[in-house]
Amino acid sequence: MEVTRKSFKDTLSIIHSAVEEADFLAIDGEFSGLSDGPAVSMLTNGMDTPEERYSKLRKHSMDFLLFQFGLCAFRYDQSQSKYFTKAFNFYIFPKPFSRASPDIKFMCQSSSIDFLASQGFDFNKVFRNGIPYLNQGEESQLREQYEERRNQSNGVGTPSYISPTSCKGPMNVPEEHKDFINRVVEKVEALLNNSEKTVDLEPCSGFQRKLIYQTLNWKFPKGLHIETVENDKKERFIQISKVDEEERKRIEQQKHEREQEELNDAVGFSRVIHAISKSGKLVVGHNMLLDVMHTIHQFYCPLPEELDDFKEVTMCVFPRLLDTKLMASTQPFKELITNTSLAELEKQLKEKPFKAPRVECSEGFQSYDTASEQLHEAGYDAYITGLCFISMANYLGSFLTPPRAHISARSKLIEPFYNKLFLMRVADIPYLNISGPDLQPKRDNVLYVTFPKEWKTSDLYQLFSAFGNIQVSWVDDTSAFVSLSQLEQVQIAVNTSQYAESYRIQTYAEYMQSKQKNTHTHRKWGEDGWAEPPYRAVAMTAASAVHDRCTLRGKRSISPTQDNQNSDFSAADSNWSNYGNAKRIKKDGAVSADSSFSDAADSKTSDDWLRTTPEGGGASTSPEKEGAESDDTWPQSSANQNQGSRATSSGLFDVPQVW
Amino acid sequence: MEVTRKSFKDTLSIIHSAVEEADFLAIDGEFSGLSDGPAVSMLTNGMDTPEERYSKLRKHSMDFLLFQFGLCAFRYDQSQSKYFTKAFNFYIFPKPFSRASPDIKFMCQSSSIDFLASQGFDFNKVFRNGIPYLNQGEESQLREQYEERRNQSNGVGTPSYISPTSCKGPMNVPEEHKDFINRVVEKVEALLNNSEKTVDLEPCSGFQRKLIYQTLNWKFPKGLHIETVENDKKERFIQISKVDEEERKRIEQQKHEREQEELNDAVGFSRVIHAISKSGKLVVGHNMLLDVMHTIHQFYCPLPEELDDFKEVTMCVFPRLLDTKLMASTQPFKELITNTSLAELEKQLKEKPFKAPRVECSEGFQSYDTASEQLHEAGYDAYITGLCFISMANYLGSFLTPPRAHISARSKLIEPFYNKLFLMRVADIPYLNISGPDLQPKRDNVLYVTFPKEWKTSDLYQLFSAFGNIQVSWVDDTSAFVSLSQLEQVQIAVNTSQYAESYRIQTYAEYMQSKQKNTHTHRKWGEDGWAEPPYRAVAMTAASAVHDRCTLRGKRSISPTQDNQNSDFSAADSNWSNYGNAKRIKKDGAVSADSSFSDAADSKTSDDWLRTTPEGGGASTSPEKEGAESDDTWPQSSANQNQGSRATSSGLFDVPQVW
Repeated sequence: MEVTRKSFKDTLSIIHSAVEEADFLAIDGEFSGLSDGPAVSMLTNGMDTPEERYSKLRKHSMDFLLFQFGLCAFRYDQSQSKYFTKAFNFYIFPKPFSRASPDIKFMCQSSSIDFLASQGFDFNKVFRNGIPYLNQGEESQLREQYEERRNQSNGVGTPSYISPTSCKGPMNVPEEHKDFINRVVEKVEALLNNSEKTVDLEPCSGFQRKLIYQTLNWKFPKGLHIETVENDKKERFIQISKVDEEERKRIEQQKHEREQEELNDAVGFSRVIHAISKSGKLVVGHNMLLDVMHTIHQFYCPLPEELDDFKEVTMCVFPRLLDTKLMASTQPFKELITNTSLAELEKQLKEKPFKAPRVECSEGFQSYDTASEQLHEAGYDAYITGLCFISMANYLGSFLTPPRAHISARSKLIEPFYNKLFLMRVADIPYLNISGPDLQPKRDNVLYVTFPKEWKTSDLYQLFSAFGNIQVSWVDDTSAFVSLSQLEQVQIAVNTSQYAESYRIQTYAEYMQSKQKNTHTHRKWGEDGWAEPPYRAVAMTAASAVHDRCTLRGKRSISPTQDNQNSDFSAADSNWSNYGNAKRIKKDGAVSADSSFSDAADSKTSDDWLRTTPEGGGASTSPEKEGAESDDTWPQSSANQNQGSRATSSGLFDVPQVW
Repeated sequence: MEVTRKSFKDTLSIIHSAVEEADFLAIDGEFSGLSDGPAVSMLTNGMDTPEERYSKLRKHSMDFLLFQFGLCAFRYDQSQSKYFTKAFNFYIFPKPFSRASPDIKFMCQSSSIDFLASQGFDFNKVFRNGIPYLNQGEESQLREQYEERRNQSNGVGTPSYISPTSCKGPMNVPEEHKDFINRVVEKVEALLNNSEKTVDLEPCSGFQRKLIYQTLNWKFPKGLHIETVENDKKERFIQISKVDEEERKRIEQQKHEREQEELNDAVGFSRVIHAISKSGKLVVGHNMLLDVMHTIHQFYCPLPEELDDFKEVTMCVFPRLLDTKLMASTQPFKELITNTSLAELEKQLKEKPFKAPRVECSEGFQSYDTASEQLHEAGYDAYITGLCFISMANYLGSFLTPPRAHISARSKLIEPFYNKLFLMRVADIPYLNISGPDLQPKRDNVLYVTFPKEWKTSDLYQLFSAFGNIQVSWVDDTSAFVSLSQLEQVQIAVNTSQYAESYRIQTYAEYMQSKQKNTHTHRKWGEDGWAEPPYRAVAMTAASAVHDRCTLRGKRSISPTQDNQNSDFSAADSNWSNYGNAKRIKKDGAVSADSSFSDAADSKTSDDWLRTTPEGGGASTSPEKEGAESDDTWPQSSANQNQGSRATSSGLFDVPQVW
């Protein structure tokens, strides 16, 4: 189902129920570009540490726009023993909804745009009818603006207007505005004494309007309703009406509700992500690290600087992730699957020993035909990603005694693949472990070589020709990692290099040490034309945004709008449940997993996930406490989780070990 | 006429003749955004110096894409005493044309995109069928790549392959590639001894192909043609054919021509700008500073850091510019025209005392109806900009005795408006003078005030309330310029401020001094999220690009392609003529202006402009010399020009004076 700005509001309830009733969700995003700055080969170096890779992607990919989002909800029907799908293809664009709204700038990469164009991507739909959105920070900012304006017209005075002069009340009207203000006061006095109900003042500047509000609220604390209106020439003027307190309250209430609706429209697509997050359902993607990063960056908060902070935020937003590319590159699929690109994977998983899953498109949804590929439409990619997951999950059932044809999205067999996101082009760290510490390969056979920038790969082959086969991964013009085949040669290489002038060789360990010393190494990635936002700033915005989500809840629950209480509350609840889930996985991952991941088709158990987490809800009210704990709870917790899964899955699919 | 990638090649000759026969050209551009970083109000401060304004626009606007270019050629037909128009609307997109081509990243601003979308702008046309382009640097780089590859296959060896090992010839084949190379050699020996004509090697890496070329060129210097081919799987493999020298030469020649055509396709839209530039015709735009900056930046060279360098480059590319917004805001139009926005201007210039010009759309061109506005389609905007110019030019004729109804684009009456580009929101510097020094207002009544960031405009009003009316233009959160109405109050204000703690007041002169001292003030503008490219780097790229245009000519004239010699040479000539014009205006502006600006309708006189500039052509062969001269020749020359125009135009329209 295609969803644009026009159809979004009417579709929202359909989306909500699709998410609520789903057994799992598949997502995919299309971006306006992938990477600015240095060559991608340099951006994704084969020897990156998870921290390096994350920080590169954060700095070089987040300026692009996620402008199409695919969501496919899969519900298993036991009676018919088949999945029913509901696929949505959202067009997304940060249309400025008012003067006050942020004017987003985003990057495009001609190669990416050209590629999408060649796939028939409809840019007009994005830019003309894309659904707007706000992240948490922008949402609360807008909320405050509305409240401030309400206070202003209520005569409470304008909080933002902090300045040496403001306190002195309306006396300090600048000379040249005094006549203007006096004329206004006369008009109002006339109004109060005549039979007219309202009077319109002539259009004037924002500063003059401030003065008018100030003066009138001070001179006429009661009996007036003052409102700023825009005429057809888009000029803003003030309208003053005689009202009794009751009428005044009613008007205020109407205005408040109108504003709440505007606010919800502005939050726009972010509400879909809130709903996914709230559901706590398993979210499947293919090679989904960038999708997850963009989704959080665009709809929640700027990405934190530190990888660990990113992991924590991610667990709050998406408590259960599964990456089909990582799954397909892992035992027992590794040996059976030659090409893990989405299109190829989908084909191979129709053939033996796998089985194409039995799926049917739910009523009222356009069905996709995998024969005629619509690749790179986000909705379709999400759909076949889901198919891939089902085929692989069911294949795991064949290892059980007795074998089982259907394996649910909540089966323990799948746990080992949870929250492990595929890392492109890193030989010895297959994935980013979102809910635990990352693998730390020793890399004893790796050398860090620096040399003149004239050198080519062939020169490195030449240099190491005595050492047999080598693997080269470039860092920049003048340095590269070289992996030797035999460990014992490492020291020889280092020793011989001591007399070299043109080049220099370090062991990987030495390199990492000197890197930690030199704080500027990180900055290197800022020198390709895009400055990096100041570290603290970003980290803090991100953190505060996460906190906002707790504090916001308070605000929200007292100001729900009549027209869409459900969705509004669902957005609120989400945070509770997520903190709960995140918390639980941290606290006692495997155990509670066992209890809550009962392998049942009844999707209502999703509610159990929420209910089984009282301490989670509790904890989320004091996020600082949680943040403080997390550092030491991460490693321990995930260790538990691994043991847990090993215990239950006979180690067969225990990802870290098998790799 | 709409021009996309599909129709571009066939339209090129039509465009060339339209430009050649035109009396003047009107242009307009549509961009993906206007300004990143700080609020535009801050970007265009009312007290900017021309240098500040230029450097702000260069740093905050050039990352956006000019993706629609409007060109309208106006030819006056004396017999029918009306203008004939040919309007082109080009869609432009930097589609990567090969693996080697630059992968451009550009910015979009949601407000600009949303505005264009609301005007029905067709983004699909831009991104799917936009015409590609290269700037001078990219063009020469690509040219070198082609030549390198040709040399390689000619067995000359690869210049780029400079490394410790390359010199040692083919002996240094890395261990693990030796077998592979030996098998290739055997295959070739077999080929030479059998009846086959060609042999295809299996696909292999770029490095392996390098080794093959090296080895075979060394082992078999004659009798072989070696070529890299791509199979339908996009894998690259080497094809070896037995050939005698003659056949080999023929193949090389065909290949060379094919490459030249590819090259011209890649240069793409830049060829249109080259043609405009070559013609030396008057180029009219409305509020055209950003159009000119983007056009040069995108199709010639990155903008130089210094304003004076920009002026020089601009005079090379567009020797004659006229800005209708500046013209409309100048005597004698200033008093008659209330609103100088393009749409309003076009309306007002149909009414008395002005006359709507008599224009007719040339055959085969879609005609625009000014009644049903198609504003913000670049082609249409260029068209009505031309209409505005004609109306205003003809109005000048009414001041002559006897009055004249038609004033040509070459009339002396128009000279005073040449090369003066409207400066937005600068009260006392109406324009940027491209062909001379800029006005330098004293600003004796201006104060530079710094204060706490809580301060608002009202606080400044408050602070200066004793000094009557003031004008405030913000610089940033904590500083602003304040213009006082009475000069004598300046010193009083400065004195009283000496005892102030919260704020500080400097005279404009003091501010400018301290600014010149503090080199970091400039950098301030780099701190909004976009790093500025290192100064030298940009300046040099720009400069070298301009130089390239001289040196390129040499290359070009010896390697013209058979199929489009004209266009190729025209691009070459352009540079001569432009340097000529630029040079002439510098050397003896007014004089040669008098000689060449004969008020004749015969457009062929454009050739005279070219012929009257031998020393220009000469000078351009030693650009350094020219560069060295320019600095001291600018002011003097433009002084001449002003006198010249004053002498000829009775001072009435002498812009700097009248303002």
